This record gives sequence, C-alpha cells and structure tokens, in this order.
Amino acid sequence: MTAGEDFKELYDDYLRKVETQLECIVKDKHPESMYAPFHYLITGGGKRIRPVLAMICAGAVGGNPDDALDCGVAIELLHNFTLVHDDIMDRSPLRRNRQTVHEKWNEASAILTGDVMIGFAYNLLPNSKQHARSDEIYKTFTRGLIEVCEGQAYDMDFNEKKDVSLIDYLNMIDKKTAKLLETAAMIGGTIGMGSNEELNSLQTYANCLGIAFQVQDDLLDLTAEQAELGKRIGQDLFEGKKTFLIIKAIEKAKDENDKNLLNEFVNNNGLMNENQLPQMIDLFTRLNVFDDAVSFADSYFNKAKNSLANLKENQYTQMLHWLVDTLDKRKK
Amino acid sequence: MTAGEDFKELYDDYLRKVETQLECIVKDKHPESMYAPFHYLITGGGKRIRPVLAMICAGAVGGNPDDALDCGVAIELLHNFTLVHDDIMDRSPLRRNRQTVHEKWNEASAILTGDVMIGFAYNLLPNSKQHARSDEIYKTFTRGLIEVCEGQAYDMDFNEKKDVSLIDYLNMIDKKTAKLLETAAMIGGTIGMGSNEELNSLQTYANCLGIAFQVQDDLLDLTAEQAELGKRIGQDLFEGKKTFLIIKAIEKAKDENDKNLLNEFVNNNGLMNENQLPQMIDLFTRLNVFDDAVSFADSYFNKAKNSLANLKENQYTQMLHWLVDTLDKRKK
Repeated sequence: MTAGEDFKELYDDYLRKVETQLECIVKDKHPESMYAPFHYLITGGGKRIRPVLAMICAGAVGGNPDDALDCGVAIELLHNFTLVHDDIMDRSPLRRNRQTVHEKWNEASAILTGDVMIGFAYNLLPNSKQHARSDEIYKTFTRGLIEVCEGQAYDMDFNEKKDVSLIDYLNMIDKKTAKLLETAAMIGGTIGMGSNEELNSLQTYANCLGIAFQVQDDLLDLTAEQAELGKRIGQDLFEGKKTFLIIKAIEKAKDENDKNLLNEFVNNNGLMNENQLPQMIDLFTRLNVFDDAVSFADSYFNKAKNSLANLKENQYTQMLHWLVDTLDKRKK
Repeated sequence: MTAGEDFKELYDDYLRKVETQLECIVKDKHPESMYAPFHYLITGGGKRIRPVLAMICAGAVGGNPDDALDCGVAIELLHNFTLVHDDIMDRSPLRRNRQTVHEKWNEASAILTGDVMIGFAYNLLPNSKQHARSDEIYKTFTRGLIEVCEGQAYDMDFNEKKDVSLIDYLNMIDKKTAKLLETAAMIGGTIGMGSNEELNSLQTYANCLGIAFQVQDDLLDLTAEQAELGKRIGQDLFEGKKTFLIIKAIEKAKDENDKNLLNEFVNNNGLMNENQLPQMIDLFTRLNVFDDAVSFADSYFNKAKNSLANLKENQYTQMLHWLVDTLDKRKK
C-alpha cells in the first residue's frame, strides 16, 4: 500500500465523521420549511475539504484531529451558508447535480436556511471552559464570516464592472474562496495548540490552496464532464462571471474578432447564446489561457507545499502535501 | 420635573450612545455595495429599544449600564439583519419612511448586508478576558439568532397555512418579536452579573413586553397615521399577514358576509384591492377585535410589570416600569 492510498483512507475516515455529524444536526427540528432545506443542503455530499482540513491541521501541529471535528463542521456550515445565499444571488438552478434550495423550495426558505445555519455554526465552537483558546477561535471564525461576505460582494460588483483586473480578481477570490480554507486551517491549528509561526504557515498553505483551487474551478467550468461538475458546462460564462480565463483573455486578445466577442461578453453580462460557447472555448485555446490557468494554479499549489517547510514533519504534514497533489490532479 | 421626564432623558442619553456607535461601525469599509446599505440601514433611526433595554437591565441588577452598550449594539445589528432579510421575503418597499435596501440597491446587496451584519454583531460581544460570563453571552446571543430565524420561518409558513390559530400566532411572535428583546434583557442582565433568578425575571419581562408590542404593532398597522408608521396603512393586510386582528376576527365571525370577506383574504393571501381595506376595518370594528387587541396587549404589559417584583428596586427597575407605560401609550 502506498502512502497516497493511506491518506485517502484517512481522508475518507474524517469525511465519514463529518458526514455523521451533518446528518443529525437538525434532526426533528421545526419549522420544516427552514430545516428541511437545511438538511437537504448539508447532506448533498461534496469533498468536505474545509472540515477535513481543520482536522488535519490540528494533527499537523501535534494535536488530536478529532478535537477539531466540531469546529470543522461549524466551518462546513458556514461554507454551506455561503453556497445557498450565493445561489440565490447568481440565480443558479443546480448545485452538485441537484436543484438549488431556492429552486426546490423558494427564496425565503433559502435566505432563512442560510441565516440560521450561521447560528448552528457558532453553537459548535468551543466555549472558554472547553478550550483555552476559544476567544481566538471565535475571532478567526467571525473574521471568516465577514470576509467571505466581502468576497461575494466584490464578485457581485464584477457583474457591473467592465474592467476587472487580475489584481481585483485575486483580491476577490482571496476573500470568497481562500478565506474559509484559511479559517479552517487556522482554527484546526489553534485547536491543536499550534504556535503563531505554525498558524502562519498553515494560513499561507490554506490561502495558496484556495487561490489555486478557485483558478482550477474556473478552468473546470469548461473542461470537466457535466456529471462530474454537477452543473452545466460553461455555467460561469453564461452567468457572465469574470473568471481567470476571461480576464486573461481580455488581457491578451489582439485580434479584432476576439476583442469583439470579449466585449460582447462584458457588455451583455455573459454569453448571449449557446453558439458563443464553442467560439469562446476556441478563443481561450488560441490565446493559451487554459495553459495560463494551469500554470497559475500550479504555482500556488507549489507555494502551498513550500509553506509547510516551517512545520515539524509528521503524518499530518505529509497528508497536507498529499492533499495538494490530490487537488492538483482534478484538472488533468 | 416628574420621574417620567427623568427617564425620557436617560433613555435619550442611552439612545445617543447607541446612535454614536452605529454611526461609525462601518466607516471607510469596502466594498461599498455591501457597506453603504449597511450604513443606510443602521442609521435610519428607530427607538433602539433592544440596546437601550440591555443597558437598563444591566443597571437593574446592579451593574453599570454603559458596560452593556457594545452588546446592546450587537443585538441592534442582529435586529437590523432580520429587518433587511424580512423585507426581501415580504417584498416590502418601505421601512421607517424610507426605501428598503433591496429596493434602493438590489436583492444581492440586501442579502449580503444582512449576512455580514451578523459577523459585526459577534465581534461586539465580549471575550472571556473582557467578561467573566462571556460564554453565557455568546450562547444567549446565538439562541436569539436561531430562534428569530425560526420565528420568521413560521411567519412565512402562515402565508400558505389557512388555519392559523392564536396559539400558532403566539408561538410565532414569541420567536420573531419577543426573542430579541429577551436576548437584550438577558445579556444586559448577564453583563451586570445578575443572578439566575434576576435573569429569569428580566426574561419574562422582555418576553411579555415583546408579545404586547407585537399585538400593538398589528393594531397600529390600521390605527396609526401613515407618517408615524413609516409604511402604508394596512400594509400587513395587503401582504396577507395573519395578524392578531385577522385571527381573532376569523375566530369570532358569524355573519356570512364577514366570513366571505375573511375567506377571500385567506384564499387570496391578502386584500385584493384598496376597497377591501375599509370593509375589513368595518368588520374588525363590529367584531370588537380592536378592543380585544388592546386588552390582550394590556394584559401582557401588566405581566411584564409584575415580573419586576422579584428584582430589588432601583432607578433602573423604575425605568423598566416607565418603559412599559411609554410603549403602552403608543396605541392611544
């Protein structure tokens, strides 16, 4: 058995613990109009990377991963709160191959389900009798909540903004995507009683992982199989999202036809029809922006690995390396 | 100068402190698409009864009211979070004589503004170094957040539910309206280091005040002047809200015409046109449901006062009595 397979088993073991907690978190709760969508949303599967990351990071600084399970679940709830509200704002019909909450129920249920989820998340954080560093955990968690909202607000702003730069984009995904991974890593490290230096390393690790992950996600919107993606191919482009690919293409386009297609995309807030999808894919291919995205993601995956050099090696720091490699493989 | 005037001055003094904090809470924050509506929402005036109540309750158990200011502001933010999200769900165009956030900006801004407000609220609660009972404060606050969402979900359910009983209604307003007043009173009392018995009394006080307040609000929807109300007369009825008046009228109606009008209201989820408003007011008058609402509110205002008997009298417990009388006067 290789080391890689070992960690897959451990990952799945943690994932099962997370799933078990999520499964019963709103059991028998009323009103159903709020708690049925809550249950539906959090039992829709997924990688559960945030809670598992919190657990691994507790281990990486010498703590017990199981001690970070509750906090990990809290962060998974916070993540799901963002999903259900973002889906309303983006008018997305599908998420992980299933109807979104506002489609299956209605918008009021989707708003309330997200809202109450924040409360359930806070209830899972340890109090000062349960953990010596509970204040720090609350603070990190709340910062995560605030910044993830800011990230989504910037993302919404991009719908109106015609000239989104790569710097604007990176600032946005730093908050919208990377922040909750950072929150998970730092809270896991705090639960495991990591030093400030260790927490800094874990934060950098998670931040770089998050940035790489989002650029990869932008890529997968066009390169993945629909079933694997859980939503329609090119959804980001139909929604008019200013993804890494679009921003890079605008930066690089010289040909008038290419510029026109990109201008149309910007001015119409997205592709105008199905026919424009293959045209845009062709444009991205000719301008090499798919390769740019792969290289960019790779450089951040490498930065993530490098940041681990400051941690004393153990099986959990090895697992953090393995996690980078595993996520990196998504795009191939 | 009478005692009553004294307390008005003290109330306004606390209110000014709350306003000062609210005024600068998101100063110079970005993105503007989220923080401009945040600022607009929380500087729209209002009685600020929740934060002031927290301050008075800290004093009522022998603590310093100023120590409860931050927590009070946190609860005011939590209250404003509920307002901005409820207004989306209710599609309300006006709040306190001004456009609602989703009307003035858009729905995404309104959702995000409410979301991020929860984070700012948690940031105002004391940590374990700042207050010996911080765990209790967090717990009470989070329970408030969860229950106020449940209350709104029940209220939404009532739009579909044809047979809402008075018990259903009381359970709903207990969570939707009374809960945050309870949260304010209990956190204020905890900040002031009140005993369990004192906290129980304050909780009962605030709960009864909240119930009375909501029934009175249902009444004011039809009896207040538009300018005073800050929204159009009969808004609740046009939205199809199952208010105290409607529920009581359905309970009491015997006449076929009355029953038909009420059935139409229920089946159409609200009044069908402007002409039905005077018809409904006439029906309420004939069935005495306005008087029922006044008596009901009065009985809860009295319960609120009675619950104070267990507290050692001081100027703040006197102020709690005065507060009941002041709110009671709203309907006259």
